[in-house]
Amino acid sequence: MEIKVMHQVMEWNEDVSDAVKEELSRHNVCLINVLGSPGAGKTSTIVSLIDRLRERYRIGVIEGDIAGQIDADKIHALGLPVVQLDTDGACHIEAMSIQHILTEFELDKLDVLFVENIGNLVCPAEFNIGESFRLALLSIPEGDDKVEKYPLIFATSDALAMNKYDLKEYFGFDDQRVERNAKAANPDIQVFRVSSRDGMGLDELTAWVSKRIDETIAK
Amino acid sequence: MEIKVMHQVMEWNEDVSDAVKEELSRHNVCLINVLGSPGAGKTSTIVSLIDRLRERYRIGVIEGDIAGQIDADKIHALGLPVVQLDTDGACHIEAMSIQHILTEFELDKLDVLFVENIGNLVCPAEFNIGESFRLALLSIPEGDDKVEKYPLIFATSDALAMNKYDLKEYFGFDDQRVERNAKAANPDIQVFRVSSRDGMGLDELTAWVSKRIDETIAK
Repeated sequence: MEIKVMHQVMEWNEDVSDAVKEELSRHNVCLINVLGSPGAGKTSTIVSLIDRLRERYRIGVIEGDIAGQIDADKIHALGLPVVQLDTDGACHIEAMSIQHILTEFELDKLDVLFVENIGNLVCPAEFNIGESFRLALLSIPEGDDKVEKYPLIFATSDALAMNKYDLKEYFGFDDQRVERNAKAANPDIQVFRVSSRDGMGLDELTAWVSKRIDETIAK
Repeated sequence: MEIKVMHQVMEWNEDVSDAVKEELSRHNVCLINVLGSPGAGKTSTIVSLIDRLRERYRIGVIEGDIAGQIDADKIHALGLPVVQLDTDGACHIEAMSIQHILTEFELDKLDVLFVENIGNLVCPAEFNIGESFRLALLSIPEGDDKVEKYPLIFATSDALAMNKYDLKEYFGFDDQRVERNAKAANPDIQVFRVSSRDGMGLDELTAWVSKRIDETIAK
């Protein structure tokens, strides 16, 4: 019974996701869905990307959280428009929530909308939210077996950034294993190695994100 | 509509969880529900506890995973009875799955059954699975804001082990903040600082786990 209902919700979610995508397209806004485990570095990576992209694009952020607004406060401190989406315990963001929140932004004054999804490698992968593309984060301390254990999130993401790469040696993390498994699940996935601590790889990731934004908002 | 269905499933889950608990009680088995993010160190902590407890107790393991059997293979290598529960994409373990799997074990030959839940700080917290107690893991690289962001899992766990404690200084992790917030959510929670890398704190954690096992199987 549970599976049946999930299926209905998900079909309905797809329709709303398409509607969100259309609305963003009308306003020439690129929505980036940022996914990853709790503590993978979603907020810090978004902040690093904002630093490098904000001279070129007008950026807004939706911060998804189960409780509190710690991350939204960090974005707010940057002086960007940010909305906190409190899922009140729910484990993922649905398109309907994004549709509702879009009315809080002046979309004609935005080029890019980052959505930081709930910290979870499972459920968010199943729900499109009208995104132009998905960026998945996997941090080194989580271990190099995570693509095998949580395949869907990597199969459905356009890019994978291995974050906290400065800890690769400490954890004996096999980044080739991760890249190999990610590309087996998803041959088109772009793989980056980054570190918010020392800035490694962030320029390469920014260049790719920027290219995808340009492709989206030029349409 | 979605919330309503979740509620029905969860009420039903509670009934099954009680039935599992009764069956385990008849056979004098203590079920330990181990929760935490992907990569928090659930498997390695279970292995460390098994090392320290196996002379005293007869131990079995249920390894929950969305896909694959990497962790079950590790337990199998220890020569213990293990069953892999493949949730086929589902984000948590339900009591019905445990009820079904119990028939795979010779319960009269067990004292302790570890269940490694799906790597997820959200959904598993909502589902009792007939456990005697819950052990939640939070690893240092995940960050010291996780109790505030994912309160339910810590509010419902009997113990919290901060794992990968060897990385505390590297990450500037405020363990007092975590302990304070965990105890605010749950005044009875036991807090441990452990490291599978250097063994720190594992004897203290083992002593507490052992005490809880004794209290359960003495009944």
